[in-house]
Amino acid sequence: MNQTIETILNHRSIRQFKEVPVTEEQLDTILAAAQQASTSSYMMAYTIIGVTDEHKKTELAEITGQGYVKKNGHLLVFCADLYRHTLNASPEQYEQMLSNLENSEHFLVSAIDAALAAQNAAVAAESMGLGICYIGSIRNQLDKVDEILHLPKHVIPLFGMVIGVPAHTPDQKPRLPKAAVYFENEYKHDHEAELEAFDQTIAEYYQSRKTNTRNDSWTDQMLRRFTNPMRMDVTGIVKKKGFNKQ
Amino acid sequence: MNQTIETILNHRSIRQFKEVPVTEEQLDTILAAAQQASTSSYMMAYTIIGVTDEHKKTELAEITGQGYVKKNGHLLVFCADLYRHTLNASPEQYEQMLSNLENSEHFLVSAIDAALAAQNAAVAAESMGLGICYIGSIRNQLDKVDEILHLPKHVIPLFGMVIGVPAHTPDQKPRLPKAAVYFENEYKHDHEAELEAFDQTIAEYYQSRKTNTRNDSWTDQMLRRFTNPMRMDVTGIVKKKGFNKQ
Repeated sequence: MNQTIETILNHRSIRQFKEVPVTEEQLDTILAAAQQASTSSYMMAYTIIGVTDEHKKTELAEITGQGYVKKNGHLLVFCADLYRHTLNASPEQYEQMLSNLENSEHFLVSAIDAALAAQNAAVAAESMGLGICYIGSIRNQLDKVDEILHLPKHVIPLFGMVIGVPAHTPDQKPRLPKAAVYFENEYKHDHEAELEAFDQTIAEYYQSRKTNTRNDSWTDQMLRRFTNPMRMDVTGIVKKKGFNKQ
Repeated sequence: MNQTIETILNHRSIRQFKEVPVTEEQLDTILAAAQQASTSSYMMAYTIIGVTDEHKKTELAEITGQGYVKKNGHLLVFCADLYRHTLNASPEQYEQMLSNLENSEHFLVSAIDAALAAQNAAVAAESMGLGICYIGSIRNQLDKVDEILHLPKHVIPLFGMVIGVPAHTPDQKPRLPKAAVYFENEYKHDHEAELEAFDQTIAEYYQSRKTNTRNDSWTDQMLRRFTNPMRMDVTGIVKKKGFNKQ
């Protein structure tokens, strides 16, 4: 197994960091890695905001409810960005661009471009001995995050990422069996048996892990999560920012 | 620079492959890497379909207009998947889940989950000396791809990925300068100067590269691309499949 595969397979989300900032050199490497990811039709439809201002970090920690959004080596926010592509457009050209700027195709393109860049950043950081955690909970108050970062139209925050020197080594969380996420040639509609096997694995995992033991299964957890409507305001905010409207 | 960073920074999209299939062992490693990516709230909201059937590969190559979708070491299609989460739900529970299944939040979650997994797969493959290329053009006819792969409701194809032993070494395409994609604390609305500098870089790149030289700049290329409405049907197909409806 090579060093890269080892790094990837060793991933766990890190939520406690030593009080050591990510160095300029590390950050440059992480950003270069992010930028080298594939991008749809050369659009590079994302922006990364590094948040260092203590007041902004405090506000973001409150929005996410996660203390490590304030206490970390560095905080990045990954945004979908189609604004840059409009910068050189005349008013007439901008009008003509709107169908693309506002359709689901380019909402997908920009979200996927941002995610590919982010995962390169994550793997690069981990290969240097740093730990990371994605922060989806910035979408708890997407409009407020949008304001804090002064984002123009056609730019929306998607998720954050905290990076730093790990101060703990959490257990690795099991993944669904390969047989439940990988199919050959066509989707296997009936894969309850694979989920059942995983529920057993997960029940054992929750019982045996070092901290925060509980009785739970994956399918129960998902049922609870999905039956409780979450972040219903994201739809409207995304549209208000000019994405996903037509 | 460690091996992982080197692998990531050396990325180029590979579109010509030797006639050597990806081995079972390589594929298992690539899939394990994909699965170890971070996932929003443990949802693992994606499915990967490996396409080996020659007839299906031919159909997908026609849809994408890209011969290497047929000729490669292995072809993967990454899908957003919220179907799995409904498998154990009663009809009443399913009704209750619909708000989440259909909102933009979970459209984003599943697209991002799939992209994070895909980029881990890409880096893992490249670390083993394989080459990859993302295939966004499966969205040329999303409904047909959906049919070919027999996807249920709440599953949509997002993009493909071809993997194999590289038969060429294309030039690396320049990326936007860091100053155009990374900002500290807030978005820099006026970054035309950074784009102008990049346009110069790109004009030189297109003139100097080994094959397919042309006169072009990045901003011109983007203006052309965005003023021509593309894949406007994706919006409707995504909704028909139960995503992004409310």
